[in-house]
Amino acid sequence: VSTLNKVDRISDLGEFGFVERITPGCVLDRRRVVQGIGDDCGVTRCTGGLLHLVTTDLLVEKAHFLRTTTSAAQLGHKALGVNLSDIAAMGGTARDAYVALAIPPETSVEFLDDLYRGMKDLAARFGVSILGGDTSISHADMVISITVTGDVEPEHVLFRHGALEGDTIFVTGPLGDSAAGLHAVTNGQVSDDSDARVLACRHLEPVPHLVQGRVIAQSGWAHAMIDSSDGFSSDLGHICDQSGVGFVIEEDALPLSGELKRYARRHGLDPVSLALHGGEDYVLIVAGAADLAAEAARHSFELVAVGVTTGGHGRTVRRPDGTLYALAPKGWDHFAHRRSPCSGPSALGAPLVNTPQTSQ
Amino acid sequence: VSTLNKVDRISDLGEFGFVERITPGCVLDRRRVVQGIGDDCGVTRCTGGLLHLVTTDLLVEKAHFLRTTTSAAQLGHKALGVNLSDIAAMGGTARDAYVALAIPPETSVEFLDDLYRGMKDLAARFGVSILGGDTSISHADMVISITVTGDVEPEHVLFRHGALEGDTIFVTGPLGDSAAGLHAVTNGQVSDDSDARVLACRHLEPVPHLVQGRVIAQSGWAHAMIDSSDGFSSDLGHICDQSGVGFVIEEDALPLSGELKRYARRHGLDPVSLALHGGEDYVLIVAGAADLAAEAARHSFELVAVGVTTGGHGRTVRRPDGTLYALAPKGWDHFAHRRSPCSGPSALGAPLVNTPQTSQ
Repeated sequence: VSTLNKVDRISDLGEFGFVERITPGCVLDRRRVVQGIGDDCGVTRCTGGLLHLVTTDLLVEKAHFLRTTTSAAQLGHKALGVNLSDIAAMGGTARDAYVALAIPPETSVEFLDDLYRGMKDLAARFGVSILGGDTSISHADMVISITVTGDVEPEHVLFRHGALEGDTIFVTGPLGDSAAGLHAVTNGQVSDDSDARVLACRHLEPVPHLVQGRVIAQSGWAHAMIDSSDGFSSDLGHICDQSGVGFVIEEDALPLSGELKRYARRHGLDPVSLALHGGEDYVLIVAGAADLAAEAARHSFELVAVGVTTGGHGRTVRRPDGTLYALAPKGWDHFAHRRSPCSGPSALGAPLVNTPQTSQ
Repeated sequence: VSTLNKVDRISDLGEFGFVERITPGCVLDRRRVVQGIGDDCGVTRCTGGLLHLVTTDLLVEKAHFLRTTTSAAQLGHKALGVNLSDIAAMGGTARDAYVALAIPPETSVEFLDDLYRGMKDLAARFGVSILGGDTSISHADMVISITVTGDVEPEHVLFRHGALEGDTIFVTGPLGDSAAGLHAVTNGQVSDDSDARVLACRHLEPVPHLVQGRVIAQSGWAHAMIDSSDGFSSDLGHICDQSGVGFVIEEDALPLSGELKRYARRHGLDPVSLALHGGEDYVLIVAGAADLAAEAARHSFELVAVGVTTGGHGRTVRRPDGTLYALAPKGWDHFAHRRSPCSGPSALGAPLVNTPQTSQ
């Protein structure tokens, strides 16, 4: 506590310091609560045997989006999608969404219609109902705060903790595309470049890996799971923090899309750094038995082994030449302004736009 | 649809018009969903037989509060309290809270500590755990968006619909205190006036009527219930809209606190108008059998009969002299700027501060 008291402003404390500070005393009913602050969802026991999942994520104008670089439908899609991704990360089935909006009074009804169209289209795709919310005026920025509920069988739920030494580390899709897409939309590269258009789409309309999450959870081969929102280095770091393991990632094994490699080459960006720290890819990061790969193949989805967990606390990446380097978490922290040089706001030329943060 | 398309901005549509517009297509799974948009909570069937309740309400700086007129602890208390009140309005037990914050970077850690202290103190009082959330930077106003879960037995849940002709209309506490308290805090009347201090406390730290709501629901005598957030006239109007009944309210029977009567007299305000339209009292409005009064007495809480429901659509108030007048809903609409003259922002000298809005 003494060190905590030395900071005065939230920007000194940082987002993760803030979360750590507010956590004590939050859980009152330990018999019913399975997981409080510190994973992708809160998890509670339901009377019928299922575990109940709840997650909430908000998108704030100028912090997460600019109305000039996203369509309203894309914004609605993403605001819901980032929440669905948290349900996916627990191995759950998403059920219902609740939408709280703070809206400037000059906002057009067409914009709001499109915002809801984007939400409803994605909701329908995953059988999610929108059951309520709240609507308020805002005298400044637009804020979209969504809560999603879901459920999962107690024998299938996956937390950030649970990874074992010697687990294979998998990801369910390409890394770095979203960060490159953010670069493209904030630098006006989208209109004349088909790679940039694909990457922008990955950034603006991430598709939650709910189907993959269910298969992985039900397989029984996975030990820990998280979605990649802050950045692979940060999010894998959460698994390792909570599981007490380290890792070795094979640089060569990172799934980089052709679009990312071509776009990065054209714009002098480092695709590996974008993949490791970029964030907002909303793929799942899984630690578990190697058998998971066959399970994914049976269900025809991508599951790429990128490394292994290790005993101890080493967190390293192996270059193609065999040399190792330490991988510190460089994903986004809203208040500490910590981010990798290549994907940070300054490099993107968009100081006010960044990526969502880890759910508590 | 043709009439809906004539409006261009959310401020033309109004909050309730907006909610009506977005509702179609929101519920996908009608077997599991008991109540979608349109009541105090979303209600779904749980595998164990209980109904699951979820509500979300956000407080937006300059729209709902000014940091100069509330303490951080009061703000935390209120942000959680208005959500707990929605669980109370369904007759439910509150379980868990999820807290999403958009915070300006210059916010002090002391302010945030106090915000959470206010939330945790109220949460502890009602056995509610805080299980997660999200924290983002805001480049403008502070936004606090809270989601609360709860549950209720299917035989006890109370909706806005269900009121019958001839029901007694009750309220669980005084009306108008919060609006007078808002007047007091925005006009600097608090320091030198003990009545104003009490009213300010009612405005800044509303206590949700969870205990009362449970007793009322379990009694079996109640037919419909809502919490008074937008204002008695608006909120009773929601019960009547959804139940297909009218009402006659006895002006003489409205519970006006001594503090309200004295404060209103000193400041030239109409206490009856504050009670009917003021909003944010967070008492429960119940329609049910007259026997409810005895049930409340047995449990030692206030339950005041203020009128009756009628067939047809008349909505009237009877003056002490026996004459009747129509009572139109004049509670707060965030975008239509519709509010009673005596409690509206202009009369309050605080154009940017108003009250929360109806949950969807």
